[in-house]
Amino acid sequence: MMQEQIIQFLKESDGYISGEEISVKLKISRAAIWKHMQELRAEGYEIAAVPHLGYRLVVCPDKLLSYEITSGLGTRTIGRQVVVLDTVISTMDEAFRMGMDNCPEGAVVCAEAQSKGRGRLGRAWSSPKGKGLYFSVVLRPQVPLNQLAQLTLMSAVALAEAIETTSGLKVLIKWPNDILFESHKLAGILTELRAESDQVKFVVLGIGLNVNSSLNQLAPQATSLKLAAGRSFNRTQVLQAVLRCLDKGYARLLRHEWPTIMQEWLKHSATINKRVRITDAAGTVEGEAVDLDGDGALLIRKDNGLVVRKTAGDIFLLR
Amino acid sequence: MMQEQIIQFLKESDGYISGEEISVKLKISRAAIWKHMQELRAEGYEIAAVPHLGYRLVVCPDKLLSYEITSGLGTRTIGRQVVVLDTVISTMDEAFRMGMDNCPEGAVVCAEAQSKGRGRLGRAWSSPKGKGLYFSVVLRPQVPLNQLAQLTLMSAVALAEAIETTSGLKVLIKWPNDILFESHKLAGILTELRAESDQVKFVVLGIGLNVNSSLNQLAPQATSLKLAAGRSFNRTQVLQAVLRCLDKGYARLLRHEWPTIMQEWLKHSATINKRVRITDAAGTVEGEAVDLDGDGALLIRKDNGLVVRKTAGDIFLLR
Repeated sequence: MMQEQIIQFLKESDGYISGEEISVKLKISRAAIWKHMQELRAEGYEIAAVPHLGYRLVVCPDKLLSYEITSGLGTRTIGRQVVVLDTVISTMDEAFRMGMDNCPEGAVVCAEAQSKGRGRLGRAWSSPKGKGLYFSVVLRPQVPLNQLAQLTLMSAVALAEAIETTSGLKVLIKWPNDILFESHKLAGILTELRAESDQVKFVVLGIGLNVNSSLNQLAPQATSLKLAAGRSFNRTQVLQAVLRCLDKGYARLLRHEWPTIMQEWLKHSATINKRVRITDAAGTVEGEAVDLDGDGALLIRKDNGLVVRKTAGDIFLLR
Repeated sequence: MMQEQIIQFLKESDGYISGEEISVKLKISRAAIWKHMQELRAEGYEIAAVPHLGYRLVVCPDKLLSYEITSGLGTRTIGRQVVVLDTVISTMDEAFRMGMDNCPEGAVVCAEAQSKGRGRLGRAWSSPKGKGLYFSVVLRPQVPLNQLAQLTLMSAVALAEAIETTSGLKVLIKWPNDILFESHKLAGILTELRAESDQVKFVVLGIGLNVNSSLNQLAPQATSLKLAAGRSFNRTQVLQAVLRCLDKGYARLLRHEWPTIMQEWLKHSATINKRVRITDAAGTVEGEAVDLDGDGALLIRKDNGLVVRKTAGDIFLLR
């Protein structure tokens, strides 16, 4: 894509790049270049133009652009196709439709804002415009339904690693897949799927990550990278880091490296060895979260010594 | 609907019904009645018209019509909305879209033919035009994923009962949900679902039932009601019977009457106490099918005495 290449040139040039040079490289007229520059400016790029010197990139917009996200991404599966939308009801629904329409595995749909962003258990996920990353990924793992928890937990590990790498913050995972910074929710993961009997047809992995949100834009008990680290983040770079970690984690899962992924999950766990109360359709159980089972279920030792397994539910850390 | 009422009058009248009488009952002109009659004829109704006597229904078309299916159906949930389509790729996809678009629970979509009718494990389901019943039902049970097998097995029981009631044939259920007449496949059930983590959002229950198909229209090892009973069947009546049995069974499942449904499944089973070979992602197991587990899984006792559970897979009856 022409504009993608122009941005690339502007970014690589140390200072100004002449219209002449771009014209030669892309084999397009000076007038065409000027037109592309105008369009890029309309998208939020601030581009200085000085006679006899040429063009210089002053500011990149804080806007997600498909070609910026895929540019230099270098992943194998996740992000092979990236769709950026402005405001949607939920990226989950968009991705689910793409999944039904046979999109390639690893297709990503991001939105600048969600009018009805969803979290687990039907809860709302606050999605203020341009402040966070709200995206969903379509995966087509050939696994039975009962291996799905592994995918969810792998995603939590990938998300935690991407956040730590980009921000330097130390984060924890609250079972099954919330990312906490000092007990405040920084990010969440939602897994939806289409299955035939107990065989997965596709999975939609949804991630909500509070990036540059300020306190008044967040739900109570939530935080953002900006609040936690005291600086703003380039959302494109954060998104790329998450997609890369997910890509790596997904490949490992397909290579049956679940035991090592589980070890990494346990290292990040805010839940294990804690006293918890967990509520699901079967009722409420209280006890100590002792371990993960091989399939990703949480093992809780009740006060009577009995160990119960939980694959879903609402968890509350008691102390 | 006007045409629905006209058909009703024609069916109820013993002999001819005058245009005058219909005109009075429906408060429409004789010319309007004549126009409706023409439209009904175009749909395949054969209607005799004799001056001074009126109209008489000679032949109903062998065509599924939404208002004929819902007329007198009397179900609580299943069939609250019935959509009839001509040829579709698969009613599963149509119903899945309806589910995503928040259709009411119990919505049914039937097709006269499917160009790519699906069975379990990605197999094709032969769906010749006008010869069978190919339909899908959208259900929204508030259950975790691991209770889904119960829904599938309940459907098999309902389908078997509806077939027995309508045709007098004695049929068996091959685990999990094929309906057999003398070892030949008469009908099959496919379950698809959308879930969030391990909570069901909706289920699409697809049924393919060979009604009036002749031998050359069927897959090898398959049969039809017509071949088995030696007579043709009115597809609308068969469909109504199935919808009624499903409605009853679904209500029982929601009332937690799974144990009795399981007993009925076992009574119809072609699998229990048989030697079977079952293949799934984990490999192949051979042994005696001894029972259903509480959640609907099949229990197989291997020759070494070990009992294994199977929730899905391809089963072969060995003798």
